[in-house]
Amino acid sequence: MIAKSMVDYVKGSSVIRAMFEEGKRLADKYGVENVYDFSLGNPSVEPPAEVKDSIIDILQNEEGTYVHGYMSNAGYEDVRDIIAKSLNRKHGTSFGSDNILMTVGAAGGLNVILKTLLDPGDEVITFSPYFGEYKNYVANYGGVLVEVPPTEDFMPEAESFAAAFTEKTKAVIINNPNNPTGIVYPEETIVQIAEVLYKKEKEYGKAIYLIADEPYRELVYDGAEVCYLTRYYKDTIVGYSYSKSLSLPGERIGYLVIPDEVNDFENVVSAATVANRILGFVNAPSLMQRAVAKCVDAEVSVETYNRNRELLYGSLIEMGYECIKPQGAFYLFVKAPDEDDKAFCAKAKEFNILLVPGSTFAGPGYVRIAYCVDYDMIKRSLPAFEKLMGCYRQ
Amino acid sequence: MIAKSMVDYVKGSSVIRAMFEEGKRLADKYGVENVYDFSLGNPSVEPPAEVKDSIIDILQNEEGTYVHGYMSNAGYEDVRDIIAKSLNRKHGTSFGSDNILMTVGAAGGLNVILKTLLDPGDEVITFSPYFGEYKNYVANYGGVLVEVPPTEDFMPEAESFAAAFTEKTKAVIINNPNNPTGIVYPEETIVQIAEVLYKKEKEYGKAIYLIADEPYRELVYDGAEVCYLTRYYKDTIVGYSYSKSLSLPGERIGYLVIPDEVNDFENVVSAATVANRILGFVNAPSLMQRAVAKCVDAEVSVETYNRNRELLYGSLIEMGYECIKPQGAFYLFVKAPDEDDKAFCAKAKEFNILLVPGSTFAGPGYVRIAYCVDYDMIKRSLPAFEKLMGCYRQ
Repeated sequence: MIAKSMVDYVKGSSVIRAMFEEGKRLADKYGVENVYDFSLGNPSVEPPAEVKDSIIDILQNEEGTYVHGYMSNAGYEDVRDIIAKSLNRKHGTSFGSDNILMTVGAAGGLNVILKTLLDPGDEVITFSPYFGEYKNYVANYGGVLVEVPPTEDFMPEAESFAAAFTEKTKAVIINNPNNPTGIVYPEETIVQIAEVLYKKEKEYGKAIYLIADEPYRELVYDGAEVCYLTRYYKDTIVGYSYSKSLSLPGERIGYLVIPDEVNDFENVVSAATVANRILGFVNAPSLMQRAVAKCVDAEVSVETYNRNRELLYGSLIEMGYECIKPQGAFYLFVKAPDEDDKAFCAKAKEFNILLVPGSTFAGPGYVRIAYCVDYDMIKRSLPAFEKLMGCYRQ
Repeated sequence: MIAKSMVDYVKGSSVIRAMFEEGKRLADKYGVENVYDFSLGNPSVEPPAEVKDSIIDILQNEEGTYVHGYMSNAGYEDVRDIIAKSLNRKHGTSFGSDNILMTVGAAGGLNVILKTLLDPGDEVITFSPYFGEYKNYVANYGGVLVEVPPTEDFMPEAESFAAAFTEKTKAVIINNPNNPTGIVYPEETIVQIAEVLYKKEKEYGKAIYLIADEPYRELVYDGAEVCYLTRYYKDTIVGYSYSKSLSLPGERIGYLVIPDEVNDFENVVSAATVANRILGFVNAPSLMQRAVAKCVDAEVSVETYNRNRELLYGSLIEMGYECIKPQGAFYLFVKAPDEDDKAFCAKAKEFNILLVPGSTFAGPGYVRIAYCVDYDMIKRSLPAFEKLMGCYRQ
């Protein structure tokens, strides 16, 4: 008696639940310290101290009816102003509070902007491999996700990107730094993407929106630069979340940036604000809005993730695993030795290693390893990874 | 270039914005103390002290990665268990953690359950007047809201309720205590509603879900009892929010109750959990989940609202306004003297009184007065209400 559209989702969710249950079973059987769970993108680094201090300060000095009350569906005006100014300092942009819409995380923001833009049948392009939820978010509004096939190095490539457009293309989603690959797109790639987009806008005589999903923006290594896309393509809308930069994924706090120069700006902002309301978000959680405004310059310790990255990447390469060294996020996207990612995940489980098949991200033949875990767990897991590789060496 | 479905919403939202701007203009012109804003359902009573104490206690004693981290999409298991037990104590039910799904407020919960249940074209019945967002929430999933016309006393009536069903009816939404009328349904009314529902389930040979939207459950006066609907009709799903009971509307924290005995229970729970994820809520805000679990027995001062109710209701009746004395929520639903609610709201504005036309709630001919405001503002507003009535007396 549930909706027909939900039936397949429920089947899928029981697979995930089975995986979760299996993890618990393994932990019960072998002890939690002997199970190596690399499946979840749940930050392992504590939020910066400013978060706790800010929340307590707010609770002790501001009125409860204000701090926990309703505000505009777009969020507190002063919070949006502080965030706009912080972006301007960092990226040389010139946003004001009207360009910022506070959202229930980046997932909420993406749903809001897709509800705002999509008519049934509209197409949204993204690059494989990609965060699997994109497909669901687009389908929520009757849209169709169109996948650009991956290249060898997971770098967007102009020709295949251009080939994905049709007259139904309404938007493109780009995720940089990327989940699941950890790749950071260099400026030349961004420039190429913008060129294709401008050409296609002209060809089809309509706006095509670039949705930049950027929850991993601050998690970069080796001095990598993450381009701010509104500076490269005018019809860009940025979705951001504090889930990773402040380690607050459970709090569901983020924002959309809708620049003045975006096509049909006033309607997009108005519709997005309404969408925030009618989708049932209503507004981003109030106390957290006020807290992040006090922490715009705070950041988690990226060095902790970097240490994990260096240890795990270096060790796996030494064992013979194949993987591009990622410059961002907290994932390794590793080739399954025999290119069967599901079988490889099943085999890994025999050694108490929990991984996610690349197929989940439209990237079959690979597995995602989330290294947002304890450094010591990585150390303990290395003999298991070695044994796992042994099964494929013969 | 926004979605066609959003165009009308944007038009509607500019009307609301115009109202908001008008309120600001009046405050600037006449001074904020001379403007009487009764338009918003934003709690005026401070959250109970336990809320602040609990949050600070959690921040100081629990790990940040746990308190602010991801958990199951359904919410923290211990939080759900505490809430289930609290419901059992209050209502003699026998829920467990599996029956509770933590949501981003009641608005999030309603969207989750409608996404779970509705196929395009499915009908959802509700009683006029009703919270206007129901229409939008149902439309989000391709459903159609069917309105049962109001009775004189705004009490559901079996015959017109039964007449609203068709073979496409999938669910019924009931809001008790009611926004905008403040009416609390007595047990006999609930029993009648349940009887009709059971009859219709039999007639159409399928489950029809009763969705009980209960954010105002604790705001009742004169010792009124609010029946717990799962005890009267087995296919009941309850949507709850702490927005009013703990004065936390901005925090977006609530839950769904999905009892074991609900038709297709396992699929409904699984699908609702997936819906929570793919609609972009992901999970209810984590710190607030942990906080409300520590405050299950806390309540705001209902007496403060009651004092407002008595003063405003008594005064308006004395002036000749017509209104049923409400036993719940924090609204009066007052008859527009000449039955033109929009004109009455415009006239009220001339006296710096801001009200919401009943048409917004499918209740034309009435206006909603939200008395979740300062007692002193009510006192100051009384001469203005008197003058307003004067315009209709002649």
